[in-house]
Amino acid sequence: MSSPHPFDRALDLEPTGEPAGEPADTVRGRTHPAWANMVGPFGGITAATLLHAAATHRDVAGDPVALTVNFAGPIADGAFSVTRRAVRTNRSTQHWTLQLTQGDAVATTATAVFGAHRDTWADTEITAPPAPAPDQVPRGGLADSIAWAQRYDMRFTEGPLPTDGTASASSTTTLWVRDAAGRPLDFPALAALCDVFYPRVFLRRGGFVPASTISLTTYFHVDAAGLADLGDDYLLADAHANRFSRGYFDQSAHLWSRAGQLVASTHQLVYFKT
Amino acid sequence: MSSPHPFDRALDLEPTGEPAGEPADTVRGRTHPAWANMVGPFGGITAATLLHAAATHRDVAGDPVALTVNFAGPIADGAFSVTRRAVRTNRSTQHWTLQLTQGDAVATTATAVFGAHRDTWADTEITAPPAPAPDQVPRGGLADSIAWAQRYDMRFTEGPLPTDGTASASSTTTLWVRDAAGRPLDFPALAALCDVFYPRVFLRRGGFVPASTISLTTYFHVDAAGLADLGDDYLLADAHANRFSRGYFDQSAHLWSRAGQLVASTHQLVYFKT
Repeated sequence: MSSPHPFDRALDLEPTGEPAGEPADTVRGRTHPAWANMVGPFGGITAATLLHAAATHRDVAGDPVALTVNFAGPIADGAFSVTRRAVRTNRSTQHWTLQLTQGDAVATTATAVFGAHRDTWADTEITAPPAPAPDQVPRGGLADSIAWAQRYDMRFTEGPLPTDGTASASSTTTLWVRDAAGRPLDFPALAALCDVFYPRVFLRRGGFVPASTISLTTYFHVDAAGLADLGDDYLLADAHANRFSRGYFDQSAHLWSRAGQLVASTHQLVYFKT
Repeated sequence: MSSPHPFDRALDLEPTGEPAGEPADTVRGRTHPAWANMVGPFGGITAATLLHAAATHRDVAGDPVALTVNFAGPIADGAFSVTRRAVRTNRSTQHWTLQLTQGDAVATTATAVFGAHRDTWADTEITAPPAPAPDQVPRGGLADSIAWAQRYDMRFTEGPLPTDGTASASSTTTLWVRDAAGRPLDFPALAALCDVFYPRVFLRRGGFVPASTISLTTYFHVDAAGLADLGDDYLLADAHANRFSRGYFDQSAHLWSRAGQLVASTHQLVYFKT
């Protein structure tokens, strides 16, 4: 038996039992060094952990369709608790509220919506950006000191991390990305991938600027079977900022299958200082 | 003294006192018929109400920068309660969780982030769509039976509500919009305007389709002073869908000042049936 993938080790949550008379319960987890960012864990692994907490509750119904994660404060290396509560279950959708705490401090809040999928009229209006095939693009990445970035095979076709101080006129980054160890995609893995982009302000300013995601929203466009069909293949991920102003900017991004299917739309608000 | 504007009447929240030992408190409100949608209230007025609940708490710090509202279930005409909780206050940001309930049922959940604004490097990358000036566009709207739509002066420059069964190849709508009674913009009013678009699936299918917003996220790009400068002028609002698939679609939209300043970016996931 092979040892679990670092992603699954980071998402290992231990039940603590549901308190009597309480509709919510709490699970316990622990940060994993393989997913460390400069300070605390990679935002994507936190998003994945919260989604996984809801998805593994015995009462869950449907696939995730929307997830918002608010990074309220830093997460220290070590143990944390996640409280998960299904606040409303309808015929087609189920709404969750989640909170990650360390001691008395709330570090992260989240809401997740799960839903049933049905056959309907369908169309995709936006198209994937042009990009050479992943095997024609050299593997790149972020700084070697960023542990979580080593977990991904990243191949930038546009807007790699600036390393020579040159500011770009565009904040757009496009890259092929997949799990470096071949772990197949599932919803938590997709939620994590939606935070794979280094801050857009780095590209516009030509280097490092203090920046951190405040709030991250993801809409999932595939169901569990559609996601399983993608296996461990690359996704094409493109991100751009809309407006930088007075300490904040917003980023919109899309993740595409190799066949050009829109897999997720994801947006975030980022704090920066420059 | 003039009677309050219907927007302010809808947002009238009555404190109930903070329970001893509880960090959250509850305020009470009531739906207002001027903001009725086909079933229950306009989603925008619910978003505005939740934001207003946080913004009027005595401990609030900063301006709203991000808001996510999850429409978990229908809101019946009549009284409701909003529980508001500042879960974390940092030097630059403050995180809120909010919940709208009727009896024991959670109808809406929300998270809001407030933040301080500072002078920083600034740039806007995207540009407003071309549009004739509002006084050159005839006033339009939605069906006369939709009460809330009468509260707005809407002037469609692209993608008005389809009335003759013609399906459009594009889901894009662009309109000038302002409060019909000249109420100046503030953050709750801007939050409401972010939900002003009729469902994109109507445009693509050429008519009415059962559809409702599940989750709405807005990023505010202006501070309170910048918003006050806009007064009661029109905003240019454009929205499009990215992908329609298996019962859901996502919408991305932007609201612009007449001078071409990006005022808000807003995204939503919508349930539909066709």
